Amino acid sequence: MTRFAGRQGPIRLGMVGGGQGAMIGAVHRLAARLDGHYELVAGALSSTAEKSRASARDVGLAPDRSYDDFKQMAIREARLKDGIEAVAIVTPNHMHLPVAREFLKRGIHVICDKPLTGTMSDAKKMQAAVEKSDALFVLTHNYSGYPMVREAHALIASGKLGDIRLVQVEYAQDWLAEAPAPDNKQASWRTDPARSGVGGATGDIGTHAWQLAGFVTGLKPQALAADLQSFVPGRTLDDNAHVMLRFHGGARGMLWCSQVAAGEENGLRLRVYGSKAGLCWQQENPNVLQMTPLGGPATLLTRASRATGHESRRLTRIAPGHPEGFFEAFGNIYAEAAQAIRAHRSGAPVPDDVTFPGIEDGIAGVAFVDACVRSSNKNAAWVTL
Amino acid sequence: MTRFAGRQGPIRLGMVGGGQGAMIGAVHRLAARLDGHYELVAGALSSTAEKSRASARDVGLAPDRSYDDFKQMAIREARLKDGIEAVAIVTPNHMHLPVAREFLKRGIHVICDKPLTGTMSDAKKMQAAVEKSDALFVLTHNYSGYPMVREAHALIASGKLGDIRLVQVEYAQDWLAEAPAPDNKQASWRTDPARSGVGGATGDIGTHAWQLAGFVTGLKPQALAADLQSFVPGRTLDDNAHVMLRFHGGARGMLWCSQVAAGEENGLRLRVYGSKAGLCWQQENPNVLQMTPLGGPATLLTRASRATGHESRRLTRIAPGHPEGFFEAFGNIYAEAAQAIRAHRSGAPVPDDVTFPGIEDGIAGVAFVDACVRSSNKNAAWVTL
Amino acid sequence: MTRFAGRQGPIRLGMVGGGQGAMIGAVHRLAARLDGHYELVAGALSSTAEKSRASARDVGLAPDRSYDDFKQMAIREARLKDGIEAVAIVTPNHMHLPVAREFLKRGIHVICDKPLTGTMSDAKKMQAAVEKSDALFVLTHNYSGYPMVREAHALIASGKLGDIRLVQVEYAQDWLAEAPAPDNKQASWRTDPARSGVGGATGDIGTHAWQLAGFVTGLKPQALAADLQSFVPGRTLDDNAHVMLRFHGGARGMLWCSQVAAGEENGLRLRVYGSKAGLCWQQENPNVLQMTPLGGPATLLTRASRATGHESRRLTRIAPGHPEGFFEAFGNIYAEAAQAIRAHRSGAPVPDDVTFPGIEDGIAGVAFVDACVRSSNKNAAWVTL
Amino acid sequence: MTRFAGRQGPIRLGMVGGGQGAMIGAVHRLAARLDGHYELVAGALSSTAEKSRASARDVGLAPDRSYDDFKQMAIREARLKDGIEAVAIVTPNHMHLPVAREFLKRGIHVICDKPLTGTMSDAKKMQAAVEKSDALFVLTHNYSGYPMVREAHALIASGKLGDIRLVQVEYAQDWLAEAPAPDNKQASWRTDPARSGVGGATGDIGTHAWQLAGFVTGLKPQALAADLQSFVPGRTLDDNAHVMLRFHGGARGMLWCSQVAAGEENGLRLRVYGSKAGLCWQQENPNVLQMTPLGGPATLLTRASRATGHESRRLTRIAPGHPEGFFEAFGNIYAEAAQAIRAHRSGAPVPDDVTFPGIEDGIAGVAFVDACVRSSNKNAAWVTL
Repeated sequence: MTRFAGRQGPIRLGMVGGGQGAMIGAVHRLAARLDGHYELVAGALSSTAEKSRASARDVGLAPDRSYDDFKQMAIREARLKDGIEAVAIVTPNHMHLPVAREFLKRGIHVICDKPLTGTMSDAKKMQAAVEKSDALFVLTHNYSGYPMVREAHALIASGKLGDIRLVQVEYAQDWLAEAPAPDNKQASWRTDPARSGVGGATGDIGTHAWQLAGFVTGLKPQALAADLQSFVPGRTLDDNAHVMLRFHGGARGMLWCSQVAAGEENGLRLRVYGSKAGLCWQQENPNVLQMTPLGGPATLLTRASRATGHESRRLTRIAPGHPEGFFEAFGNIYAEAAQAIRAHRSGAPVPDDVTFPGIEDGIAGVAFVDACVRSSNKNAAWVTL
Repeated sequence: MTRFAGRQGPIRLGMVGGGQGAMIGAVHRLAARLDGHYELVAGALSSTAEKSRASARDVGLAPDRSYDDFKQMAIREARLKDGIEAVAIVTPNHMHLPVAREFLKRGIHVICDKPLTGTMSDAKKMQAAVEKSDALFVLTHNYSGYPMVREAHALIASGKLGDIRLVQVEYAQDWLAEAPAPDNKQASWRTDPARSGVGGATGDIGTHAWQLAGFVTGLKPQALAADLQSFVPGRTLDDNAHVMLRFHGGARGMLWCSQVAAGEENGLRLRVYGSKAGLCWQQENPNVLQMTPLGGPATLLTRASRATGHESRRLTRIAPGHPEGFFEAFGNIYAEAAQAIRAHRSGAPVPDDVTFPGIEDGIAGVAFVDACVRSSNKNAAWVTL
Repeated sequence: MTRFAGRQGPIRLGMVGGGQGAMIGAVHRLAARLDGHYELVAGALSSTAEKSRASARDVGLAPDRSYDDFKQMAIREARLKDGIEAVAIVTPNHMHLPVAREFLKRGIHVICDKPLTGTMSDAKKMQAAVEKSDALFVLTHNYSGYPMVREAHALIASGKLGDIRLVQVEYAQDWLAEAPAPDNKQASWRTDPARSGVGGATGDIGTHAWQLAGFVTGLKPQALAADLQSFVPGRTLDDNAHVMLRFHGGARGMLWCSQVAAGEENGLRLRVYGSKAGLCWQQENPNVLQMTPLGGPATLLTRASRATGHESRRLTRIAPGHPEGFFEAFGNIYAEAAQAIRAHRSGAPVPDDVTFPGIEDGIAGVAFVDACVRSSNKNAAWVTL
Repeated sequence: MTRFAGRQGPIRLGMVGGGQGAMIGAVHRLAARLDGHYELVAGALSSTAEKSRASARDVGLAPDRSYDDFKQMAIREARLKDGIEAVAIVTPNHMHLPVAREFLKRGIHVICDKPLTGTMSDAKKMQAAVEKSDALFVLTHNYSGYPMVREAHALIASGKLGDIRLVQVEYAQDWLAEAPAPDNKQASWRTDPARSGVGGATGDIGTHAWQLAGFVTGLKPQALAADLQSFVPGRTLDDNAHVMLRFHGGARGMLWCSQVAAGEENGLRLRVYGSKAGLCWQQENPNVLQMTPLGGPATLLTRASRATGHESRRLTRIAPGHPEGFFEAFGNIYAEAAQAIRAHRSGAPVPDDVTFPGIEDGIAGVAFVDACVRSSNKNAAWVTL
């Protein structure tokens, strides 16, 4: 018998982090709201009491559901009859573990931002906490929520590309190309090892690229060799990483992530080449997937078009040519989670086609960052994964 | 003193039309939900009672706020203490007028899908109803809600393009390239003069192209010459229109709209050329606006980037490179309307920078369709607007 | 028995026009040289004697093969044992007829720049001269020499697009967006009715768009309605034209040509939509042809790739991905002409797959300009072709 | 006093290699012919006598200037009064050295295809031969002949990008994705260590990417770490290489070259990121260079446009929007060489703005291949350059 057996209607959601000045919290709230599956009813939106309350007012929480402290929130919400069924964790990385633990142990589902944690040791503790709990754990690797990413996954799984040989993935930005202003909240914690963890760009965006490549290809990484760099003077964490990849089964690849690539906005791009065909997907124009069989011609598969299959179409909301974007993809992770949570209410299994990133993706991401740092410290020697 | 003086919080919204099997109703609901400005609480979602109730259940309306009939809904909601403050009208075109009238006369704001009406005579009646009412009237020409469309408007208004010479606008689709299946609800009413009005493609998508061109350039049309065609056998209404345009002040242009252009999904594209620069915006990749001064080089302005100004940035939700799409643009119309509705509560004027399509756009759109049909009936003679 | 029976090796070529400061003459010389089919041996490169000689030196002509006068050149070259076998005419439009006539009547093949002539009356005289002569007449509508234009032609001819419904063709430039400097030789004759003829942009680039559309689709025009404009003060000839088209068989279309579209360099673009598929080709990236069957997905056919057929592959010189451009396309017209000229030496028919624009294309082009002017003078009334 | 003092007119050119069935020989011939700077008059086009003569006939060589043997050709041509002034070497890699030596030692300029040689030891011998000779040595790294590549070089040299941080270069093809047919001449020697040398893809295309990156950025490589692979069973030489780069001064980079990337035709792409701006150039659409200052917006610089400078404009032949391609870029190397050869005639220095790849580029290229192989043999350890 599950904790929320018998619940009906929208999932009551809480949030930890995401107060005034935060960015990703607003994204989670919009993603949760998008399809009407959730209702945000509680929050500990900031670690300072006053700001927490002001933020709660801004997002329309009832004053008695606004908490100054996430632990207090977990305790009280678990007791309320109409308490939250799930919590979104949108704090800096170092808080993911302590926050998640409080909710998981009370059977409240966790939807956690990435990377899982800042260190491998925390990641293992998170894994233990997840395994001990009956609650679900969802990690918002939102890029895997794009329909055409799902289509790419389906094409490869069906064998359309043949044996995969090459995986070229990159994630280039430029927002940290210069030393950020001191009041830039997003930048300050991301460049601070105490809050971000051992990885800089590797943790913040490299884990997305890594998860995307793994999700789409289904390949298991065997080893990597990484050359990390901090280009901006005074920066401790990497702001650029060059990584060579070897996968079990013989495929090879490259991963590049950078936050100092002048002129790049959010350049996540994946190319996969197999013995029969190759494909290319680019996040900045995400409704198109280029697939080229050996001998050509290239085909442009578009979201929701007749040329696409079930795996992508079940996650679209509108006809082809009406672009869906970042929020819709993020919303797809929330929508998938909602299906899992609803199944959980009745103890039913998660439907077969429902797919979302979870604790394994989280562990894999932190292991990636950890391996990059270790490899780079050994002058880019190969490190086994 | 306005009817909803003192109301706080989300705007209570009703909906007429948009029941099971409809497409645009779901779009409106998502757009309304996106930013948390609205709460859908009532509806007459279908003209058949049973379907209306089933649809209400699907979207989570309370049974006592689900109506079998829009007039009954208008009467009762106007009396309820927590009755709706605005209504979204998402019926086929011929119903826009009768529905809107019932709500307008009771001081309930109307958010109406386009085109305004199916005929010029209805359009004028709508105008009269709007003028008589204290309530707001919003027409969802959603494409004008895209941030980079706003940017284009701002660039032209600021004189960056110089004197406008040429306006080339097109809207090409292919979903009516063949006779639709009899159970295709979207297609069936759009190809039926009784429900769609005098225009086919001209009404359904031509009005969007027309409104977009007018909004972005600020030009007033002087005359048009139109060659309308129905390519699919048995079709009464136009499925393709070629139109030449003359504007007051000397600019000229072309408008092409088609629902039989094989391979086109939702190809709305606007190009404007002035004496100093030209610009190009394409709906299928809407986060980019190309602007090229005479002598070059072309510049690619991207949504939310530092190169953009207030008019577009106030309507973005996320950093550059994180694509916003169709729903966000549609949501912007709802967000603008929300600002106007909130100002209306206190009798305050609509803030200066709040912009949304209204009754004038609606009249202009129906006048466009009407002129196209009249011109085409006279073998594409010029018709004054 | 033909005049040049028994000739071997490269075709001896003369040129009229194309002296210092000219643009298109150099293009013809390069195109002729590209594949080694021709040897430039004589010329009357300018209408002023001194400049003619200086120009001849520049391009390496022997002094005794440089003429001050085209008629004298025609007379002498026709008598020389190793006299020219073909002449390229690259003068302003008004000289095409008088020059061509001198060479045609002496059995020397003519390769003439477009448009055929500046007026319809001259065009008919040219046609008579061509018909009277045994020599070949080639008109350099060079854009039809692009391999992917040939591919488009082949796809339509083979029925892949089904019945053609729509032809959207445009040719936009901006080099005449302002009044040109007085010493701009290219601009000055093109904006002068005495040398250019009755058409401005219509003659200079509209004829290219017109020929391209006709060549690719094989459709015969039935009528057009044209709205011509001169945007730049003081300009007599059109610098922008909006044209609606009707073809025999029911297809419709639009043609837009402009030399005042700020930001456009050489934007020739053709889109054709049929009952089964649509295609798009753009001159500025000419190695790709997009073809989309109804229902998708779009395919990107690339020059020389396995996905292309004989008609385009016979006119490529290098593997896919190695872009061919403007000169190669121009060179293809010269290469086709060379095959025809060589066949002519022995009295053999031109091989079936050799295709080049000739007198019919020329007549059609001038008729297009003439119809545009007549239509525009009647306020864009339909004019039959 | 130089050997060809007093020569006038086109440069008499010989060719070694490039007989029937070859590919690159025809490219060199067209490139040489393009601008009229050269006249092909002699050749040893094949290593088999009969094929050599047949090939000579095909390309129009006089029988007495067709040789069965390159040494015999060098000896005789050096003695002829109108003997060749330069020779193009288009043989498989292993023959570059022995052929070049014979001509260099007789003072005949050498235009040699890349890579310089198959091994480092041969490369050093070539360097010695070049140094001993008064003749010029040109290596056809043709991609550096593209105007917009020159523009990129100029932009970086002028400081527009600030300090260079990142160099991402790639060259992806798929023509060796499967074991080639036994009669595929191009494929057979390129996959044969005896003729190709120690590198496969690294030698054939990696050297192009390497030279391009070095030419555009002006950076000096410090070390590389390479992971080479042969994906196609039975293949000895690499068909894919992943390489991490470190440059003197602190810049880092990645190079990827592949001949097994399904769907890629000739995907050479260079991206460079500095502290102030980034740029991107792609060979398959080579007339555009994207340059984005930090903070944006991206600008699209187009060949021959007013936005470009002297370094690129001096190598263009036609107005913007009229695409130049692969042959024109290749021809630019020949044109630059022609300027140098002409200066050499009179003992004048090569003009300052004339730029072409030479022996240093050749040495650097072979050193790159050599370093890749050594690094890969040590499991991708860093190898100093």
